[in-house]
Amino acid sequence: MAPLRSAVAWVGDIDGCLQLVDQTLLPSEYRQLECRTVEAVWEAIRALRVRGAPAIGVAAAYGVVVGCQSAIDEQPSVFQRRLDEVLQYLATSRPTAVNLFWALDRLRASSTATQSNAPQERLRALLEEARAIEHEDRAMCAAIARCGAPLLAKCSGVLTHCNTGGLATAGDGTALAVIFAAAAANPQLQVYADETRPLLQGARLTAWELMQRQVPVTLICDSMAAWVMKLGRVQAVIVGADRIAANGDSANKIGTYGLSVLAEAHGIPFYVAAPSSTFDLTLPNGDGIPIEERAAAEITHGFGRQTAPSDCPVFNPAFDVAPASKISAIITERGLIQPVTPERVRAVLQGTSPST
Amino acid sequence: MAPLRSAVAWVGDIDGCLQLVDQTLLPSEYRQLECRTVEAVWEAIRALRVRGAPAIGVAAAYGVVVGCQSAIDEQPSVFQRRLDEVLQYLATSRPTAVNLFWALDRLRASSTATQSNAPQERLRALLEEARAIEHEDRAMCAAIARCGAPLLAKCSGVLTHCNTGGLATAGDGTALAVIFAAAAANPQLQVYADETRPLLQGARLTAWELMQRQVPVTLICDSMAAWVMKLGRVQAVIVGADRIAANGDSANKIGTYGLSVLAEAHGIPFYVAAPSSTFDLTLPNGDGIPIEERAAAEITHGFGRQTAPSDCPVFNPAFDVAPASKISAIITERGLIQPVTPERVRAVLQGTSPST
Repeated sequence: MAPLRSAVAWVGDIDGCLQLVDQTLLPSEYRQLECRTVEAVWEAIRALRVRGAPAIGVAAAYGVVVGCQSAIDEQPSVFQRRLDEVLQYLATSRPTAVNLFWALDRLRASSTATQSNAPQERLRALLEEARAIEHEDRAMCAAIARCGAPLLAKCSGVLTHCNTGGLATAGDGTALAVIFAAAAANPQLQVYADETRPLLQGARLTAWELMQRQVPVTLICDSMAAWVMKLGRVQAVIVGADRIAANGDSANKIGTYGLSVLAEAHGIPFYVAAPSSTFDLTLPNGDGIPIEERAAAEITHGFGRQTAPSDCPVFNPAFDVAPASKISAIITERGLIQPVTPERVRAVLQGTSPST
Repeated sequence: MAPLRSAVAWVGDIDGCLQLVDQTLLPSEYRQLECRTVEAVWEAIRALRVRGAPAIGVAAAYGVVVGCQSAIDEQPSVFQRRLDEVLQYLATSRPTAVNLFWALDRLRASSTATQSNAPQERLRALLEEARAIEHEDRAMCAAIARCGAPLLAKCSGVLTHCNTGGLATAGDGTALAVIFAAAAANPQLQVYADETRPLLQGARLTAWELMQRQVPVTLICDSMAAWVMKLGRVQAVIVGADRIAANGDSANKIGTYGLSVLAEAHGIPFYVAAPSSTFDLTLPNGDGIPIEERAAAEITHGFGRQTAPSDCPVFNPAFDVAPASKISAIITERGLIQPVTPERVRAVLQGTSPST
C-alpha cells in the first residue's frame, strides 16, 4: 500500500482537478479519487471520502475552482452567478465543520476583490486563494505540532479519538501532528487510539497513519478508554475540534465530551489541538454549535452486516461539545490557550499574547 | 419473527432435549436450536449461542441430563462413569463463567445423594435438579425486578449496557427485568441501549428484546452515553454484573466502569442488578477479579469486514470493574444493597436485613 502523501491536493493548472484519498476505503484499500465536478466534491465531503475539518476546508476551496471551470468562457455576470451557486451548494455538504464556511468565505472575499476581471483571471485568483489555504494549512499543522509537543514530553502513553492526522488536513494533522512530534522526541510513547464508532475513523485511519509512521499504537474500543485511564496507561488525552466557541467550548467527534469528563475524573490533562480557523467567535459558548445528526444505518448496518433490529430507533449525533472548563489547553498555530478562558482565547487569536 | 419465550428450556420428559434460541443469529434471524447431545450443548455454550451467566448455568444443567440419556439402560457403574465424564466435559465449555461451575456442582451434589438408585431414577433426579435451577432462576429474575423497579419510578429515561434480559437468563433477566417492570408501570419510559462494542450485545440482543416487548428503545454507540447524560435524557443507569466482591466492587462488561464515572459526574444514580450467586465473598474488593482479555479480531474484524489495519496491536479487556463507591445500589433477589458497603452486602446476602 502506498504511503500517504497528501489527503487533499490540486493536480494541474486552472483546468486541473481535486485529488483526494478515498478515506471510506481505508485501511483495506488506498485509492486516490479525482473530482472533476463540484457535485463530485460535494459528494466526497458528504460521504466522508474527505473528512477532518481542515481537509474539508481545503477540499471545499478547490471545489469552488472545479465548480467554476465550466463558466470560464462565459460572460462575467454568468461566471458570477455560477460562483454564487457553487459557494451556496458546497456550504450544504456538512453543517458542523466551521472550516468549510471559513474556506468558502475566503474564496468569496477574494473573488469580490477581482470582480471586475475576466472570468479566466478570476478563476486563477480562486485557484491561488485555494492553494494559499492549502499551504497555510500545512504551515498551521507544523506550528501546532511545535506548540503542542512539549505538553506530551513526560507521557509514556497518550489517548486520542477519531482521526486528526495527515488524512484530516493538507499537512501532518492537528492533534495527531502533536503526537507525531512528541513521538519523534520520545520513541517509547504509546498511543491509544479509540476506534471511534460509528464510522471507525480511529481504527481505520488513525491506527493506519500511526503504523505507517511506525509510532507504537494500541487500538481500543471507545468503551475501554475509561479503563485505560484507570489502569494508568495514559497521562494525557489529545483530540482535534470541528468548531470552538469564543469561550473555548469545543465541538468534536461524538465521544469527545465523555473523554473530557473521564480525563478530569482521573486527573489527566485534556488537550484540544486546532487551527485558529476552527474558532467561531460569533458564538459566546458551545450551546449555539449545531450538532449534525446522521443516519441510523451508520450504527445499525455499519460493519457490512446488520447489527441491530430492523427499524430500531437510533440517536446518532456526529459531534458533542467538550466544555472549556474541562480543557487543560487549546493548542493553536498561534500559540497555547491556557487556561481556556474567553480572554485568553481572544488574546492568542489576536496575536496579542506571546506564542508559547 | 416469533416472540422470545425462553432463551433456554427443556422440552419433554427424561427422553427430551434442551431447546435454545441461537443468539449468534439475532437480530437477523430467530432460530430455536434443539440440543440432543452433550457435544451440541458444549458447542452452544462455547460459541455463545447461549450466553449470560444465569442462562449458561441452566443450559449446562440440562446438558448433563442430555449427556446421561445414552447411559440410562447401562449398569449403575457405567452410568456413574458417564455422569463424571459429562460433568468434566461441560466444565471446559466456558472456563470463566462462574454460574457454569455452580450449576454443575449442584448436579454433582444431587446425583451423589441418589448414588444407590437405578440409572433411570438418577436421570430423573438430575432432570429435577436442572428444572429446579431453571425455576429458581425465573424466581430470582422476578424478585430482582420487584426489588429494583421502584428505583426507576420517576425516570423518563434510563441507560443500560450489554444484555441482561430474557436472553441472558431463564426468566426475564436482571437489569433488563428491572427495566421491563418499570416500563410496565410507566409506558413512557425511554430506554437508551449502548450497542456494547466489541460484540454488540446491546445492539443485537437488548434492542431486540425491548422491541419485542414494545418498550421504547433508542440505540446509541457507547461513546454517546456521556452526551445522552449531559442532554438530560436519562435519570438512571442500570447494568448487570459478572462477579461482585465482598465490598460491592462489580465486574461487568467492558464500558461499565466508565459509565459509573460518568453517572457520578452527572449526578445520576448508577445501579447494578445481579443475583446473590454473582457475589464472590472470597474477594475483599475488585482488585482480585481476573479480567479476561479476548482476541484482537473481535475489534479488528468484528462483523464481516476488516475495520483496522492488519496486525494492528489491540487491547481487548472483556470486563472492567465499577467501584462500590460509584454504585448507588445493588439490586438482588434478596433485597437492595444500599449504601454499597461490606456490612450491607453481608447483611442482605445473609438475609439479616429486611428485604426492601
